[in-house]
Amino acid sequence: MAAASAPIKPEQANSSAKTKQIRVSRRSPGYWRVTIDNPPINVMGPEMVRQFQELIDALEADEHVKVVVFDSAVDGYFLNHSDFLAKLEDLTSLPDGPTGLPPWPDFLVRLTRAAFVSIALIRGRATGNGSEVTLACDMSFASREKTIISQWEVGVGMVAGGGPMARLPRLIGRNRALEVLLSSEDIRADEAEAYGYINRALPDSDLDAFVDGFATRIAKFDKWAIAQTKRLVNTCLPPDVELGAGWDACIASLGRPAAQEGIKELIARGFHRPGDVEDRLGYYLGEITR
Amino acid sequence: MAAASAPIKPEQANSSAKTKQIRVSRRSPGYWRVTIDNPPINVMGPEMVRQFQELIDALEADEHVKVVVFDSAVDGYFLNHSDFLAKLEDLTSLPDGPTGLPPWPDFLVRLTRAAFVSIALIRGRATGNGSEVTLACDMSFASREKTIISQWEVGVGMVAGGGPMARLPRLIGRNRALEVLLSSEDIRADEAEAYGYINRALPDSDLDAFVDGFATRIAKFDKWAIAQTKRLVNTCLPPDVELGAGWDACIASLGRPAAQEGIKELIARGFHRPGDVEDRLGYYLGEITR
Amino acid sequence: MAAASAPIKPEQANSSAKTKQIRVSRRSPGYWRVTIDNPPINVMGPEMVRQFQELIDALEADEHVKVVVFDSAVDGYFLNHSDFLAKLEDLTSLPDGPTGLPPWPDFLVRLTRAAFVSIALIRGRATGNGSEVTLACDMSFASREKTIISQWEVGVGMVAGGGPMARLPRLIGRNRALEVLLSSEDIRADEAEAYGYINRALPDSDLDAFVDGFATRIAKFDKWAIAQTKRLVNTCLPPDVELGAGWDACIASLGRPAAQEGIKELIARGFHRPGDVEDRLGYYLGEITR
Repeated sequence: MAAASAPIKPEQANSSAKTKQIRVSRRSPGYWRVTIDNPPINVMGPEMVRQFQELIDALEADEHVKVVVFDSAVDGYFLNHSDFLAKLEDLTSLPDGPTGLPPWPDFLVRLTRAAFVSIALIRGRATGNGSEVTLACDMSFASREKTIISQWEVGVGMVAGGGPMARLPRLIGRNRALEVLLSSEDIRADEAEAYGYINRALPDSDLDAFVDGFATRIAKFDKWAIAQTKRLVNTCLPPDVELGAGWDACIASLGRPAAQEGIKELIARGFHRPGDVEDRLGYYLGEITR
Repeated sequence: MAAASAPIKPEQANSSAKTKQIRVSRRSPGYWRVTIDNPPINVMGPEMVRQFQELIDALEADEHVKVVVFDSAVDGYFLNHSDFLAKLEDLTSLPDGPTGLPPWPDFLVRLTRAAFVSIALIRGRATGNGSEVTLACDMSFASREKTIISQWEVGVGMVAGGGPMARLPRLIGRNRALEVLLSSEDIRADEAEAYGYINRALPDSDLDAFVDGFATRIAKFDKWAIAQTKRLVNTCLPPDVELGAGWDACIASLGRPAAQEGIKELIARGFHRPGDVEDRLGYYLGEITR
Repeated sequence: MAAASAPIKPEQANSSAKTKQIRVSRRSPGYWRVTIDNPPINVMGPEMVRQFQELIDALEADEHVKVVVFDSAVDGYFLNHSDFLAKLEDLTSLPDGPTGLPPWPDFLVRLTRAAFVSIALIRGRATGNGSEVTLACDMSFASREKTIISQWEVGVGMVAGGGPMARLPRLIGRNRALEVLLSSEDIRADEAEAYGYINRALPDSDLDAFVDGFATRIAKFDKWAIAQTKRLVNTCLPPDVELGAGWDACIASLGRPAAQEGIKELIARGFHRPGDVEDRLGYYLGEITR
């Protein structure tokens, strides 16, 4: 079970010149780990989105993978909100994926519909994009002590872009989905578990062994049986166009004064760098608005 | 945050000659409170249904409202079953609402689809109509000690008229929805929370401050972002025709001997006035039937 | 409340020559009990499937039945996996039911859509078929100490044939449904209750009285009101074709080497007879695969 570091596509040495923000290792041919690594606060910018596209291409093309676990190498953050210091054009100019959706919702839709199993191992903040990956994965297990999950967008005048409006109501019911989305509050692991937002919260000291055991177990099962079972479960999914509509609303929200002023004021208070605003984002969203 | 009493439509002084059963106040332009006030037991008759129509007209026409909280001024009752001492014709002769549905399901559908946020603050019994408003609201928070919620209709030979057959299965799963509907039992706040029937149960002493803080927070957020987020969540709603079908079944049930005899026997035992039958309705439903 | 033993169809004395694996009694005209009784481990073979067809024919034809409770006469097992010692042809050669589906999914679909109420009283293992009957019933109540429920199929290289891919995501959310299906783990009553997989777990000593009281209560209510309420709730059901697709995938899986070898190895270890492999099936599924 030694972890072999495996570049996604060896021939793309050029793009590897850019920092690897998503590292892939294979614990076995059937069991991959994907480690998100963009310190200091694991924001997601255009380059990470591009790497998620490479990742899903590689996963879909692999005959052997049965289970992939997403985790983080950055202390305190599973995966954070988007990079607001990057140029929006660098994101919106990325080509659409094979589903016809822009690359972020394209990645999420393909991950959910994939023939292999995806698991989010959450430790630290899963804000915005981190929550959206969690919801796109087939299952999620979180550190009871160290997890905070949130869809913070409405609190800053935005609309979420990665599908929580489509996915959360079907997972936790419309009323709790609206509470999560419209309050924009930080949610701790126990509450997320009680709502069914995550599969389970586990003691931090048990989490890694639990997820590794779980993934190792599934990786021994028959890939055809896994894929058929997922295919039949996936009839319950929202249509992909709903994720496209959410993405469009998100991009539209970024062009409006409410979001621009909200993000500007948050940054003035310390957002987007390590510190109290990132640590207690839910609280500060209630402070910035008039 | 002084509460300014605000008549819904000042020009309608005539109808205000009738008792105001629904009082509206604005804590701020963005934050309205609607207080249900029909003592002694907060039943809903044709006049209250008419006032709910006025309310939703006013809310939809207002540019500023972002959140509305429903509460009660009647001790022990959030909102109770229908008024069985009123003439049914006074209800069924009310004109259909803009959705084409009769006024009660019309109000509920419009509340759910509205661009603003609706919150039920529940203290006391939410029986029948009270549960239906709760399910139509975007969120609900309830007194842990003082809340009883139920759909009692099947127990008296009726079918519920305000949409729980359409809404509950999507919120708490079909099997628990059927338990709620077919048992017709009284459900306490803790169990309602465990099932996801309400968002959360809170200690009675904390409830008002919690809901007020929650509503005040949302009222500071951007209305466009709220409305877009709700619009995208609302793809998960049952079609409005399902509420129409439920209403039709309810009216049909009222014309059948089972319901007529059930209601008559309940009234003979003390139903429809303060006392033990109203307090423990679930128990008495098991007693009246042969 | 004396239990009167009632043959399903008195004229079918011939088939009664075969062992009665499903015993029906009427506690009252409105309240039936169905007791599954195929010792020693309550597997479901072709004969039991045929008897489930007889049962649902009888239930649908009866004017008086309002509620049916399913329980077991076999210690330790509510209803277990299929009989792998029977000839598959004896199952697949049974004629399709009135829905056009093969008899097992036909029975499950008709039970769910029936005008009467169905309740699973679970004590012991509900593995595979036992879980599928539970999900097809309108409600389920389980012994807290003695219940283990699971969909074990993927762990042995199979796909489940009685609809859990269609039903579980709508009941407990897609992510927990996939955890149940893809882990193939044994699930205890407390966890099943927390996930909403069953309605409630009760102390073993309270379970029988609770379910009997619950069924007796509902049996006093008006059948028309029950049927109309169920009809309106049933708009949330997955289309029947989804259960047909699951059945087809199950039969296909049985023809593949993965399942054939998995079942063979399980049997070599003690599966299909009383003992540790049946008692801890989830554990052994993790052991047999390479």
